[in-house]
Amino acid sequence: MKAAEIAARVEAFVRDVVVPYEKDPRCGAHGPTDELVAELRDKARAAGVLTPHILADGSHLSQRETATVLKASGLSPLGPVAVNTMAPDEGNMYLLGKVGSLEMKERFLKPMVEGRARSAFFMTEPAGEGGAGSDPSMMQTTAVQDGNHWVVNGRKTFITGAKGAKVGIVMAKSTAGACMFVVDLPDPAIRIDRVIDTIDSSMPGGHSMVTIDNLRVPADQMLGANGEGFNYAQVRLSPARLSHCMRWFGATKRANEIATAYAVKRHAFGKPLIDHEGVGFMLADNLIDLKQAELMIDWCADVLDTDVLGTAESSMAKVAVSEALYRVADRCVQVMGGTGVSTDTIVEQVFREVRAFRIYDGPTEVHKWSLAKKIKRDAAKSP
Amino acid sequence: MKAAEIAARVEAFVRDVVVPYEKDPRCGAHGPTDELVAELRDKARAAGVLTPHILADGSHLSQRETATVLKASGLSPLGPVAVNTMAPDEGNMYLLGKVGSLEMKERFLKPMVEGRARSAFFMTEPAGEGGAGSDPSMMQTTAVQDGNHWVVNGRKTFITGAKGAKVGIVMAKSTAGACMFVVDLPDPAIRIDRVIDTIDSSMPGGHSMVTIDNLRVPADQMLGANGEGFNYAQVRLSPARLSHCMRWFGATKRANEIATAYAVKRHAFGKPLIDHEGVGFMLADNLIDLKQAELMIDWCADVLDTDVLGTAESSMAKVAVSEALYRVADRCVQVMGGTGVSTDTIVEQVFREVRAFRIYDGPTEVHKWSLAKKIKRDAAKSP
Amino acid sequence: MKAAEIAARVEAFVRDVVVPYEKDPRCGAHGPTDELVAELRDKARAAGVLTPHILADGSHLSQRETATVLKASGLSPLGPVAVNTMAPDEGNMYLLGKVGSLEMKERFLKPMVEGRARSAFFMTEPAGEGGAGSDPSMMQTTAVQDGNHWVVNGRKTFITGAKGAKVGIVMAKSTAGACMFVVDLPDPAIRIDRVIDTIDSSMPGGHSMVTIDNLRVPADQMLGANGEGFNYAQVRLSPARLSHCMRWFGATKRANEIATAYAVKRHAFGKPLIDHEGVGFMLADNLIDLKQAELMIDWCADVLDTDVLGTAESSMAKVAVSEALYRVADRCVQVMGGTGVSTDTIVEQVFREVRAFRIYDGPTEVHKWSLAKKIKRDAAKSP
Amino acid sequence: MKAAEIAARVEAFVRDVVVPYEKDPRCGAHGPTDELVAELRDKARAAGVLTPHILADGSHLSQRETATVLKASGLSPLGPVAVNTMAPDEGNMYLLGKVGSLEMKERFLKPMVEGRARSAFFMTEPAGEGGAGSDPSMMQTTAVQDGNHWVVNGRKTFITGAKGAKVGIVMAKSTAGACMFVVDLPDPAIRIDRVIDTIDSSMPGGHSMVTIDNLRVPADQMLGANGEGFNYAQVRLSPARLSHCMRWFGATKRANEIATAYAVKRHAFGKPLIDHEGVGFMLADNLIDLKQAELMIDWCADVLDTDVLGTAESSMAKVAVSEALYRVADRCVQVMGGTGVSTDTIVEQVFREVRAFRIYDGPTEVHKWSLAKKIKRDAAKSP
Repeated sequence: MKAAEIAARVEAFVRDVVVPYEKDPRCGAHGPTDELVAELRDKARAAGVLTPHILADGSHLSQRETATVLKASGLSPLGPVAVNTMAPDEGNMYLLGKVGSLEMKERFLKPMVEGRARSAFFMTEPAGEGGAGSDPSMMQTTAVQDGNHWVVNGRKTFITGAKGAKVGIVMAKSTAGACMFVVDLPDPAIRIDRVIDTIDSSMPGGHSMVTIDNLRVPADQMLGANGEGFNYAQVRLSPARLSHCMRWFGATKRANEIATAYAVKRHAFGKPLIDHEGVGFMLADNLIDLKQAELMIDWCADVLDTDVLGTAESSMAKVAVSEALYRVADRCVQVMGGTGVSTDTIVEQVFREVRAFRIYDGPTEVHKWSLAKKIKRDAAKSP
Repeated sequence: MKAAEIAARVEAFVRDVVVPYEKDPRCGAHGPTDELVAELRDKARAAGVLTPHILADGSHLSQRETATVLKASGLSPLGPVAVNTMAPDEGNMYLLGKVGSLEMKERFLKPMVEGRARSAFFMTEPAGEGGAGSDPSMMQTTAVQDGNHWVVNGRKTFITGAKGAKVGIVMAKSTAGACMFVVDLPDPAIRIDRVIDTIDSSMPGGHSMVTIDNLRVPADQMLGANGEGFNYAQVRLSPARLSHCMRWFGATKRANEIATAYAVKRHAFGKPLIDHEGVGFMLADNLIDLKQAELMIDWCADVLDTDVLGTAESSMAKVAVSEALYRVADRCVQVMGGTGVSTDTIVEQVFREVRAFRIYDGPTEVHKWSLAKKIKRDAAKSP
Repeated sequence: MKAAEIAARVEAFVRDVVVPYEKDPRCGAHGPTDELVAELRDKARAAGVLTPHILADGSHLSQRETATVLKASGLSPLGPVAVNTMAPDEGNMYLLGKVGSLEMKERFLKPMVEGRARSAFFMTEPAGEGGAGSDPSMMQTTAVQDGNHWVVNGRKTFITGAKGAKVGIVMAKSTAGACMFVVDLPDPAIRIDRVIDTIDSSMPGGHSMVTIDNLRVPADQMLGANGEGFNYAQVRLSPARLSHCMRWFGATKRANEIATAYAVKRHAFGKPLIDHEGVGFMLADNLIDLKQAELMIDWCADVLDTDVLGTAESSMAKVAVSEALYRVADRCVQVMGGTGVSTDTIVEQVFREVRAFRIYDGPTEVHKWSLAKKIKRDAAKSP
Repeated sequence: MKAAEIAARVEAFVRDVVVPYEKDPRCGAHGPTDELVAELRDKARAAGVLTPHILADGSHLSQRETATVLKASGLSPLGPVAVNTMAPDEGNMYLLGKVGSLEMKERFLKPMVEGRARSAFFMTEPAGEGGAGSDPSMMQTTAVQDGNHWVVNGRKTFITGAKGAKVGIVMAKSTAGACMFVVDLPDPAIRIDRVIDTIDSSMPGGHSMVTIDNLRVPADQMLGANGEGFNYAQVRLSPARLSHCMRWFGATKRANEIATAYAVKRHAFGKPLIDHEGVGFMLADNLIDLKQAELMIDWCADVLDTDVLGTAESSMAKVAVSEALYRVADRCVQVMGGTGVSTDTIVEQVFREVRAFRIYDGPTEVHKWSLAKKIKRDAAKSP
């Protein structure tokens, strides 16, 4: 099977080539430097595993197949960056592939697929200023038409990868509703006020606070139709959300491999750690949690492959997977004791990344809130 | 698809015909009376849903198909009894179908499949007397050959359905190892010392403490080969364990339907319960837990359908499913407040049943213990 | 110290005299029969431990002292009934002692303190009929003045101990607000529609659904002032809520003693259960949870002894203690395996009782809801 | 009351003077620089709050009083460093005060109390090399007498504050058992191989991996008697363990203040966050968890003040408090969403610190293991 082969090659590449880079000093608090990204991608390109989920003919693997590949890419926190399956690029490529015009695909999508351009998705806004945090209906960034251009103004926050990105997708409100624009970056009208220091550290460019100040965009750079912005956000939403689950599944699986090896090798109180039920039970719980996470990912991928939006399903998967992976990562830290809270292995980083994952792409509570609404709607329909 | 149709008919039968019997006074602390069982089975037979997982030609649905049917049968605590998919009969029929001689199938299996005979599986022994609780290696019941007969002596406990059973499978230790016998019941040499009162109450005959006192069994009633008893126990083990997951999945799903309907209808503090996040989030958690339980059941069924023993997989499924269903049942009780702890709905019973399920067929801790051993073995194999 | 001596005598009485009655067939689904209650109380009276928290001069122990005594009385599910510290009598005696007129004390309180009369508190109403479940503002029972009498009409539910009670305190709404009446029972105008079957089974008389149909009460049987009903409910509320914590603490402590003894004695997989970390850790968690529960009870008792209402503190204690005791009881069941879900020990009953406790006197979620409101109010006050 | 006054002054100092330093760039991954430490301590000295738990006459507050003061000092992650109540100095001062000779007190303790010297406690060893991780019986560092000196050799790890310390207490094994030495630092024979990067970042000097290579110590620098090392470790153990609980209680309390203020101010989906039960319930849980943590600290302090070792009690407190504070910190992060995982407030740091706390001073599992042993011993004693 095609996807399985791709995944196997990605896994081998990540384990053999990428893992040794995990201690590279160019990995910082805001992810690897762009120099390191380029170096990794050169190797991925040479190994034939760059952007592995998009085939040479431009077609995209199914979600179920993508899961196989993205889980493999996630086995190192550096893996997705190296093979170009990382957020937000993966979701942006998906969206441009679905909605972009031919020109946009040539001008913006192509360099992304070739791993030569990183991108950013300018949607979330500072809650503290009344903007849209997890609640998109509160969007305050505006797009006003001015002849053959649009003028965009607003504030955005937690814009992953903005620093260093070459392509931006900007969401704003017009009189027709929400709309999106694709723009070249950097642009002086899109000012990075600061890169926010956060508990996670795998994403190149980090997460930025941004001011958009009279950004002028030619009308033909509007993505799709005016007023359809929320619909396009929906198109991107579920697959992008699920791809987070896939990548972090890989990272957590690797953390569990490290913790298991540790528990087998180290002794305390007269026997290997794993022979202590207190440790062995944690690893058994990990085995179960990882299996359940995998099954949820595959199930949700199958749903998305039927071409429905899958909003509820991806909410269920996001909650279940992020919380399960977090429990796994936390147990890995605990099993390894002092070594677990040190940076001597990637377990400590995976724990921090997955902590953030419980909030990124909608905190657990927001998803439960929307699921409760759905349960109520469904109950109203049943006799 | 065949199984889906069978399941749909079973579901309709359980919802329409069985559910109204849930308040029948013949449902007691040790399950429905045999009179009630017979009445329900007459109706199931008439509706063509008796023993629905075994086809007219004697063939057995695959595990994956069985899951569909058994989940449907479990929608009422009386459902499995009514359609003859309950424990321990379901597992005993499976074992006799796999290992029994033609004569045994005709004499013992046939009346069971026809829903005219209940059965019991005499394996577990009183831990307090040094016998095999969750640890089969401690088995103390003996089988000694005496000419063309075997003489069996020992003590058994938690023998589900022993009271009222017409067929018994008795496990004992011979010099060759463990062996099993199929016997007619009742037999004066198999004395029911008492039926143990327990927190659950769905299984006809309850769970008995039994003394086997010089039981003489003709040699041709030994099931399969002498010394193979543990292997046959393994054959029965995983499918039987998984069938518990299937049935109780159905029961818990129904409890969740009841709790959801309650939360939509009842008001407190100015709005429907479900509009309180404290309640809505619990129902969202239920949705997720039920989905995960279902996925684990299907995954494990697929593994068993490849004809492996699936010991580790069924341990994983048993732990994950029993604990998930318990959380769901507990939340259902909590959502319904005073009504939840009353017997006005089956939610209270389902909660009690699923509490016991965390112990029956191996407590969660025993499964984690054996999974930890497996993790250690697997780690030793990897480079 | 006085209270410590009383508690020691109560503990000795419960362990030596009451515990053997736990298997008495007169203990049913709705608690012990009134015959058994009388028999136990005769023994308590003879041992000088009847109503031990109210001294011979009519004075009441402080809440902190009461904790010591009530925890001891709770060591058996029959203990509080035996020594007359049970709900709702304990709270009703407290309320009558605080608010009752001299005549009321002589006529109603005296026989209760002497253990000759049980009582009931008619407050909660059927949520399904729009009445007050956990939300007292929804009260629908009315009291209308008619000359020198009041006429009361309404429906009440979950009225603990109503069946068999000789004294009733009835809460209703008048034009002045809420009010309370003290009445003799039984009264044909207070009709017990049914005793609700519930998961718990320790309270004599069970919990009843009641119709009050033109109950005529002489005006001098109004408890305290008209319109003050909610205030009196508040006076009773926190101490009564805390006394639940005290009694069930005792029951759970005993369950833990039983589970610990079991874990020390029984063997599995080659060693005593307690030497398995999977079991030992559960008992360690119990040790910690019980200590925390005890500290919360003592802290809240100290607060109440300063004569404040302590609504938030008793909410905190109720949530923390009921949830902690539940975890403990659940672990006791799990440690004991099959024996844990059987009625062979009281562990199974304690588990069921404490499950109900998470709902009785306000479900956990209602308390958290009111605590969240308080946190918001307090935050508004801080600079 | 004395201690309450001291605590109030410490709290005011921390809130007014220390908190503004939290954004100081001299706070790094291995705690504040020694320059910053000196600056903070100058201010503490001027404010009369330096080493506030040791009075001018050299006497030490009781543990219960110490709790009041140390909780106040912990309100900022920089607070304990600023007022000299931090680990490991606090425990080292305690031990020297209890066991040190007059000369040692003058030479080593005095500068520590005056806040002019930091110290380190060289006990834990690299588990990976077979040394003592959480299991002190595995200690491999040796002390061999050589005339009037001792020669010490070994490897130590996770030695907090070693870098920059002026005083060291070194634990080793002699033929008489374990013993301790007090030495000046730095010493070329105590080589800091590396400072381990860890998830926490509040402790000056970080945690070091150390090689002790032919360290020669004059015999009169042996602390107390030869062979008594484990006993002295016990003397230091429980108070030091509890002081961690105190300080981190303060930090977590402050995190909860920040999260509460956030939840009151920020809006989502049409109302303040705190009015969403999903958020309000988390804050209610925090209120309860913080109260329980405080009660456990006070209870354990009371036990220690009776002059017992309190090993079991401090294990119970350590497990209960570290796990409770972790739940609180995790909820604070979650309540604050994106802001919670950013370093914009100290919530993110507190979360990381408290994560490590579940491992430092004995992982939760090691404490449960030793509590299980104690439960077994106690059970053997009871009839």
